[in-house]
Amino acid sequence: MKVPVKELEKRVADFQVSMKTREIEGALLVQRADTLYYTGTAQNVHLYVPVTGKPIVLAYRDFARAQKESSWEVLPLKGISKIPNNIQEAGLPLPGILGLELDVLSVNQFERYRKTFPNVTLVDVSAEIRRQRAAKSDWELARLEESAQILPAVLEFAKEILHPGMTEVQLEGLLESKARALGHGGHVRMRGFNSEFHVGAVTSGARAAASGCFDGPVTGQGISISHPNGASMVPIQRGEPIVVDMVTVVHGYQIDQTRILSLGSLSEELIKAYEAARRVEEKIRSALIPGRVAGEVYEEILAWVRENTPYEHNFMGYGTSRVSFVGHGVGLELDELPTISKGSKEVLRAGMVVAIEPKFVFPGIGAVGIEDTVVIEAERGARYLSFTPRELIVI
Amino acid sequence: MKVPVKELEKRVADFQVSMKTREIEGALLVQRADTLYYTGTAQNVHLYVPVTGKPIVLAYRDFARAQKESSWEVLPLKGISKIPNNIQEAGLPLPGILGLELDVLSVNQFERYRKTFPNVTLVDVSAEIRRQRAAKSDWELARLEESAQILPAVLEFAKEILHPGMTEVQLEGLLESKARALGHGGHVRMRGFNSEFHVGAVTSGARAAASGCFDGPVTGQGISISHPNGASMVPIQRGEPIVVDMVTVVHGYQIDQTRILSLGSLSEELIKAYEAARRVEEKIRSALIPGRVAGEVYEEILAWVRENTPYEHNFMGYGTSRVSFVGHGVGLELDELPTISKGSKEVLRAGMVVAIEPKFVFPGIGAVGIEDTVVIEAERGARYLSFTPRELIVI
Repeated sequence: MKVPVKELEKRVADFQVSMKTREIEGALLVQRADTLYYTGTAQNVHLYVPVTGKPIVLAYRDFARAQKESSWEVLPLKGISKIPNNIQEAGLPLPGILGLELDVLSVNQFERYRKTFPNVTLVDVSAEIRRQRAAKSDWELARLEESAQILPAVLEFAKEILHPGMTEVQLEGLLESKARALGHGGHVRMRGFNSEFHVGAVTSGARAAASGCFDGPVTGQGISISHPNGASMVPIQRGEPIVVDMVTVVHGYQIDQTRILSLGSLSEELIKAYEAARRVEEKIRSALIPGRVAGEVYEEILAWVRENTPYEHNFMGYGTSRVSFVGHGVGLELDELPTISKGSKEVLRAGMVVAIEPKFVFPGIGAVGIEDTVVIEAERGARYLSFTPRELIVI
Repeated sequence: MKVPVKELEKRVADFQVSMKTREIEGALLVQRADTLYYTGTAQNVHLYVPVTGKPIVLAYRDFARAQKESSWEVLPLKGISKIPNNIQEAGLPLPGILGLELDVLSVNQFERYRKTFPNVTLVDVSAEIRRQRAAKSDWELARLEESAQILPAVLEFAKEILHPGMTEVQLEGLLESKARALGHGGHVRMRGFNSEFHVGAVTSGARAAASGCFDGPVTGQGISISHPNGASMVPIQRGEPIVVDMVTVVHGYQIDQTRILSLGSLSEELIKAYEAARRVEEKIRSALIPGRVAGEVYEEILAWVRENTPYEHNFMGYGTSRVSFVGHGVGLELDELPTISKGSKEVLRAGMVVAIEPKFVFPGIGAVGIEDTVVIEAERGARYLSFTPRELIVI
């Protein structure tokens, strides 16, 4: 499936509007998710977007494939030093102010661009790109809906295969293989430095309450010191909550979802906590309304948990491992805007897609909670994109 | 398993020697593979290495876990702006020249360090780190040998499950789930910008000859435009070569290996090409000797293929998708030094670990070849670390 040319034209035009506001005359983009967004190909390209007119797509690997995949005309990249020539040959002026993705571009890469554009002011355009990409088009929402189709079947498969003595990583591996057979693309893109992600986390019992560097409420023990997140090689025990936090990606678009499974019934206390998490999820969903400020929603949810549940200290992690958000944007990357987080001034807009994930962590016992991907629409609150049944799955 | 303190001391001491050569008085490291290498923990840390004396390990997420995992003393990071205080509190002078990982540090991150160290000259130390990490210690080689244990069992499993009509991605998913159940850590680290890697590539027939952006001889068709590398959802056909290129990682250390499978026999022509690839592999292995220059080995191999096989134009890709290397360093990252590549001036040293991967690509037909991970030792050539039988696997 190609990204339609109308879709690409709209994306570039909207970016040009935000460039104009800052008097940026051109932007040179290279990061995979950004160039995929504006060109429709995930090949290695340099994309030059002038403030007015058509973009220039320069591909170096693989040119033939980029040509086939993008709805724009694609030219061969002859070298970074030749990019100013490419701009001039297209009848465009060289920019006085050039935008780059300074949130991801390394210092060494930047130096090469600085030499290529010696008298040009280089500025960061990553905030504009990330803000634009946060609100999805109807075409993108349709892709997210396709991506959401995979997870219900994966959870049904979990019911078939889960058995006592199975290790966390065995379960995770088989669930991922099922997702991939159904069209999940595998690699989940993240923007942040040092961000590492494989499948998500299938983690059970006390392992699910292990503290760790993963930027989420539930880290997992992981398989070794080098890979300290997600599933471990510990066998799953009866009566323990099994956190199945998984991402699927279809045509680049990610759905993030968490469900809780168990072999035999959970304790009354954990069932109560799970039901509380479901109520918090509904609170978050109904608070995600265009015009609201993300950080205010976050504080409101925190207050609600404090006043209406006994789990204030277990919410979104425990102790040093606690995180300061209840939701994060998803799309072509797993760490998109907006984050529904402490201090965020981001104003919510229609079309923004957010994974909301209220979770309670009980040290030595485990974690319960829920996560769904929703799209912000209108007054009545966000709409669920993920639709796997939300009950505890007891086997 | 913790990294022994003696191992960490040796790594830091060797790095300090290379810092001294360049009169660098301190280095501040943050990239995951680098900090894991020098501290033994994969938590988020800032590592300050003075040119003499003990390193300072500052952890922010997760502090408790970093303390447990590293054999160094770990202190809580109070903020980037406080790092100069941490240095002074340890009784160390502030550096006049400070090394940073400028090959991976983003421009925006760099600006924060520049503000934190206003009168300090900031220089790149990534080349020193990468060169040091290229040569593995005995402890690291033992970890690589553990990692190599997984792949023979995965290929045995492939023989059990492969059947006509199975899609490439079904096979890939199941093989990965097997590898993970046996201890493969999942996420494969890469250093390069825009480098994306999931499992490797299970790709068959003409799909294996598709051109693409992946920096290897065999790209695969991939599952969609957004994920254009590796396995597709196309069913595997009888008589087609199936390229199973997979990486395993144990305690952070990666083994990269490729084997060829088929349902029923391959054509005579492809069998001949496979046998040629095996001879090329032996040529590369025996040429990897301490003191030799990587680029010279590359040219020698190219000449050998030209003179001794009819596949010169099929070697290491075809047309626009061809790559200019026959081997790449592996270890904590998949794109380590040395590369056995065009123009490389890298002098080979004992302990360097290289994935050598002679492959022939035939457009419209498929790809055959082999890949093994070897360690450079002494005069008689490199030693195989991966040991899966090297015959074609016909089912």
